[in-house]
Amino acid sequence: MSKTQPARGMRDFLPADVRRREFVIGVIREVYERYGFEPLETPAVENIETLLGKYGEEGNQLIFKILKRGAHEQTGEADLALRYDLTVPLARVVAEQGERLPKFFKRYQIQPVWRADRPARGRFREFYQCDVDAIGSRSMIIEAELCAAASDALTQLGFKNFTIRLNHRQVLAGVLEKAGVPSNKHGDALIALDKLDKIGQEGVEEEFAARGIDMRAGERLLDFFAVKSIERAVQIVADGVGKTESEAFNEAMIGRLVEFVSDHEAGARGVDELRQILQFAGASAGVGARIKIDPSLARGLSYYTGAIMEINVPDLAGSLGGGGRYDNLIGMFSGRDIPACGFSLGLERIIVVMTEREMFPADLVSTAADVLVTLWDEASVMDALALARELRVGGLRVDVYPDGGDKVGKQFKYASARGVPFVAVAGPDERGRGEVSLKDMRSGEQQTVESGAAAATLREKLGLRK
Amino acid sequence: MSKTQPARGMRDFLPADVRRREFVIGVIREVYERYGFEPLETPAVENIETLLGKYGEEGNQLIFKILKRGAHEQTGEADLALRYDLTVPLARVVAEQGERLPKFFKRYQIQPVWRADRPARGRFREFYQCDVDAIGSRSMIIEAELCAAASDALTQLGFKNFTIRLNHRQVLAGVLEKAGVPSNKHGDALIALDKLDKIGQEGVEEEFAARGIDMRAGERLLDFFAVKSIERAVQIVADGVGKTESEAFNEAMIGRLVEFVSDHEAGARGVDELRQILQFAGASAGVGARIKIDPSLARGLSYYTGAIMEINVPDLAGSLGGGGRYDNLIGMFSGRDIPACGFSLGLERIIVVMTEREMFPADLVSTAADVLVTLWDEASVMDALALARELRVGGLRVDVYPDGGDKVGKQFKYASARGVPFVAVAGPDERGRGEVSLKDMRSGEQQTVESGAAAATLREKLGLRK
Repeated sequence: MSKTQPARGMRDFLPADVRRREFVIGVIREVYERYGFEPLETPAVENIETLLGKYGEEGNQLIFKILKRGAHEQTGEADLALRYDLTVPLARVVAEQGERLPKFFKRYQIQPVWRADRPARGRFREFYQCDVDAIGSRSMIIEAELCAAASDALTQLGFKNFTIRLNHRQVLAGVLEKAGVPSNKHGDALIALDKLDKIGQEGVEEEFAARGIDMRAGERLLDFFAVKSIERAVQIVADGVGKTESEAFNEAMIGRLVEFVSDHEAGARGVDELRQILQFAGASAGVGARIKIDPSLARGLSYYTGAIMEINVPDLAGSLGGGGRYDNLIGMFSGRDIPACGFSLGLERIIVVMTEREMFPADLVSTAADVLVTLWDEASVMDALALARELRVGGLRVDVYPDGGDKVGKQFKYASARGVPFVAVAGPDERGRGEVSLKDMRSGEQQTVESGAAAATLREKLGLRK
Repeated sequence: MSKTQPARGMRDFLPADVRRREFVIGVIREVYERYGFEPLETPAVENIETLLGKYGEEGNQLIFKILKRGAHEQTGEADLALRYDLTVPLARVVAEQGERLPKFFKRYQIQPVWRADRPARGRFREFYQCDVDAIGSRSMIIEAELCAAASDALTQLGFKNFTIRLNHRQVLAGVLEKAGVPSNKHGDALIALDKLDKIGQEGVEEEFAARGIDMRAGERLLDFFAVKSIERAVQIVADGVGKTESEAFNEAMIGRLVEFVSDHEAGARGVDELRQILQFAGASAGVGARIKIDPSLARGLSYYTGAIMEINVPDLAGSLGGGGRYDNLIGMFSGRDIPACGFSLGLERIIVVMTEREMFPADLVSTAADVLVTLWDEASVMDALALARELRVGGLRVDVYPDGGDKVGKQFKYASARGVPFVAVAGPDERGRGEVSLKDMRSGEQQTVESGAAAATLREKLGLRK
């Protein structure tokens, strides 16, 4: 007897789960389409070289590898691997398709990815990403539109208090360099700074020392990232000119960034881009106010080159999604750089939050069928099937009780237990008169109608449009 | 520079492909729902023991196996594997969920499966199956309903000339045994008989000899399966009683089967089941006439135990789908037998045929967007984005041209090349008057409307409902 659980970190989705997932995917897809993105799908399996070396050291280790087949199986070597994200496959497709794609290729892709991570609450080894990416433009209109699309999708799903944190890889590099951290220590410095909330200023100082970061550089960084001083600056700006809180905050942050990296060329250009994104996103009502410049945002993946974003909601560790600009990734496949920027919403986290906070609409289809056709006895099977046929032609979702040996009372109980709202009975009396009995399982009400009118009657009672 | 093709036997789906696939999946899903089936999804990856030993020798070899991770990678061993079909995962879920599922669990599942087959025209290593299965009943109502559902789905997609071939594993076993083929040679006999069309009667006789099948037994089989004699029998029945051709054919076939296996207990029970399926399917108008008893149909998979079905269209080698009863498979997971029967439509074949025969609706969304908002110049970005926002709120799919440096003429050409039907321009003149220019790219017609009325005007021109 084989084990019956799904593989570790993976999940079976029963009907109610699938309906919730499809509801969320449907909303996200519709919003992405409204922003002019088109659907793309790529295989779950990629050649292993396509994936290796694209995600950094840690990413490489989390890739599921597929054994060679046939005689080569013995070698223990892998030639294929499961998709780790949707961005690298997109870069491959863009390089492969070349001129066959439009100059500005805007695609969305909603598919599962696989990572051999240690499973934890809300972290799975198979999970869906909902990606939007725009290829071919260096304009910050792209970043603004991506933020607007992700924000619209979440709003449409009922999310209210989310923030889009915004930063820039070049600005981050500028800040670190200007503080005196050599580029080979940037990763270490960010890991240490990331713990500021948890271990405090002194803790971070110790971590800097342990990671070989110069004390003076560390001090400058802590001075820059110390949240209190930022908040004071915000207060001053806000008092002064009566802007909204988020405008004032972002203005203050931009001001601090300029102060720090104005004489660092790439960093200064990055600050300009952030300023543009804020301005353009402002034109999309409601989105500008969601964005918050966060100079400490780093994002894990190694392929980002420009603006980076992440969406957070209060009381949830981790993010609902994120993204950024990656102008060099496609060049790893095509040999020439093609600018690109993308955003990914994480389906699993969205569903966890929506379930916990009861954000799903009450009328999400949760019944197996609209009506159960019962079997009066073995002799009435043909009539029951003909009735089912009629009801289906009438657009109803119809289940037929399969076992004529079971008493009708048992069949009614079955409908009740499954939440099927109506039961149709065509017993010998009804058949003789060309009629059908319909029972409303919620009210208990029963009525007899001509069999030709059964579908229309049920549609009306169920509130379905013809 | 990495390779850019997808892995061997796998495919990237560009937007027009995805839209075609989603159209077909949408139709099939809707029909399955109308028959009271509910959606289920299982992981792409299963524990390797779940899959091994379920598909027969050949199937085992086509399973993609996943290497152990971390320190265990060195061993070259596999602990996971990619889903080979949707039936075995269903059996696992049914065993795992037990009483939490309804007594009659009717599920559909539309997901990809992976097989390391040699790629060929219409045969891929990643392909979608569209499965419906009903668990928990031994009634032939199930078989009839499955045939009706698959038939309805194909009819809804525009297929007209398809046949559902129907046979029964127990009848097949009965025929072979009665002909004198010992059960360990059943497989060999069927492989040889399967070539009757190609290599003729004498060729099959030689193949029988080569496979060690007794000459007398072989003769009896050839006599039974010789198509000409069947057709004569059909003619006689048809002449005699004036039934439809398919009724007469099936009656003649049932008659021959009875003659051959009436004193073989399991075989005779199988014939009774076939008769019931024909009768029940007859109650579903249009389906009965599609079914054709075919005593030579065998189906590859080893888990079938009763009725087996396959759908064929003229001029297409291979089938559009197939299925059957598998009453013992769930027992391999749960330890107790639970009856089950299913049908699977092959998405890839359906799409190949629909594409070749131009069966897709003409109005299937094939444009990236309803309207392209142009950028008059760098200074008008904010206005363009605000206009895009308005049009999106109005329910339109809106693309924004991202590069303000490009001339408006170039932007118009871009819209044309992409098949976007409308272009919206908000130049300095229009902006001054609070207006927008809309250009119909198909007719060349241009009109200026108040910017607040742009969405409604476009919706009307595009024939979209509010």
